[in-house]
Amino acid sequence: MPPRTALTVWPLEGIPEVLAGTDLVSVIADAAGGDLQDGDILVVTSKIVSKAEGRFVVADDREDAITSETVRVVASRTTPSGFTTRIVENRLGMVSAAAGVDASNTPEGTVLLLPVDPDASARAIAGGLRERLGVQVGVIVSDTLGRAWREGQTDHAIGAGGVDVFEDLRGGTDAEGRPLVVTMPCVGDELAAAADLVKGKAARLPVAVVRGRADLVGPLDLPGARSIVRPLERDMFRLGADEAYAEGFAAGLASAAEGGVGAAD
Amino acid sequence: MPPRTALTVWPLEGIPEVLAGTDLVSVIADAAGGDLQDGDILVVTSKIVSKAEGRFVVADDREDAITSETVRVVASRTTPSGFTTRIVENRLGMVSAAAGVDASNTPEGTVLLLPVDPDASARAIAGGLRERLGVQVGVIVSDTLGRAWREGQTDHAIGAGGVDVFEDLRGGTDAEGRPLVVTMPCVGDELAAAADLVKGKAARLPVAVVRGRADLVGPLDLPGARSIVRPLERDMFRLGADEAYAEGFAAGLASAAEGGVGAAD
Repeated sequence: MPPRTALTVWPLEGIPEVLAGTDLVSVIADAAGGDLQDGDILVVTSKIVSKAEGRFVVADDREDAITSETVRVVASRTTPSGFTTRIVENRLGMVSAAAGVDASNTPEGTVLLLPVDPDASARAIAGGLRERLGVQVGVIVSDTLGRAWREGQTDHAIGAGGVDVFEDLRGGTDAEGRPLVVTMPCVGDELAAAADLVKGKAARLPVAVVRGRADLVGPLDLPGARSIVRPLERDMFRLGADEAYAEGFAAGLASAAEGGVGAAD
Repeated sequence: MPPRTALTVWPLEGIPEVLAGTDLVSVIADAAGGDLQDGDILVVTSKIVSKAEGRFVVADDREDAITSETVRVVASRTTPSGFTTRIVENRLGMVSAAAGVDASNTPEGTVLLLPVDPDASARAIAGGLRERLGVQVGVIVSDTLGRAWREGQTDHAIGAGGVDVFEDLRGGTDAEGRPLVVTMPCVGDELAAAADLVKGKAARLPVAVVRGRADLVGPLDLPGARSIVRPLERDMFRLGADEAYAEGFAAGLASAAEGGVGAAD
């Protein structure tokens, strides 16, 4: 049988359709009943946070909505059949396809944008649940993201309140006593991934509870999921390969025109 | 209380030090005792698979070992203090730092390479456990990988035997009846991430059991984790931005030298 150290992950049943203005604290507290305890972590799908915050915008064209959410185009590619994938950085610093603009399960003619500040949303939900239920829970707001180099998608943490998103082992040592140099597990993303295994995308199970990592739950002002975003100066993939090549090519041409170094090099 | 649909994840206690030649099927079967049941998924850290397969190589210089495991350098960067990070594709198609060459928890003067064929390893362990214990289990071989655009690391599936690595929702519809076009959750990576939450890197807990997704467990010849690797022709980040820029710059110079288009453009 699973020992005491087990992690348990389950979806909250009975979350109703979330509308603009829905009080997520009430909805989650009602669905959880008396089941939550200190150290539980709730993983809340960003879509219901966006809906509760009324982040619907009228958009006949999803591509226009993506453009307006985009801070920076990282890469884009058009298939022979004319379908364009854009990998962009959005105003939250997240790099993803479609800037988090969601057109599935939304009313016809509208799309749903990401929450304005997912960390603030997570803190508000965690704080509300702590106050209402008297239990010290943490909250992750999750979103489904593709990855470079790997097919398919996994859920990631885009907001966090009252829960560590990194397990910092940098000061630790391995079993042989040598320092563990650069290991910093992103437990925020791992919690989101674990929760996705019980949620089901097509079903309405937007909230899961993870029990068994109470050590990660702490004050509401712990760093949020924004801290997971790698700063541009540390990012080796700030541009797609084709885009960077094109920039370099143009610069090479210009350099030749200016300096006349072309032939010799 | 957690309902029937819960996922439970726990580490196997009592896995001994794994040495070259250790029979992992025996070690895992002994540690699990009679606890495994049909549909359980074992997530096995690649390190113990490598050790059992004797993948130690003598290496005074870890960098040399990385070079020999590298098929293609994707990106590299040297910090002002002289520490170079190389993002490379290894012979398994995986893009990662250090080509999976591991120098922690290994005997002094040696490094550990990844398993020769992690999918084959996973199938052998799953098949061995099925035969020995009479239960239909699946096996994921996991490794810790960094990510583009996001700090820290998460565990990913690099081998799979008898378990689906993708949950294919592409043919499904959302709750409004519209087709779910391109959602293909990489449950293999999500299982690896969930398992990492109970493993602990510094402790010796290299195997975790995930119970609650028996629907993913199937025949041993299901596609392995190799199928997660995005083919180069679909990869928008086949080169780091600096590397692609440099290639483009050189091509731009050469083009100017050949065609003399520089000044006009």
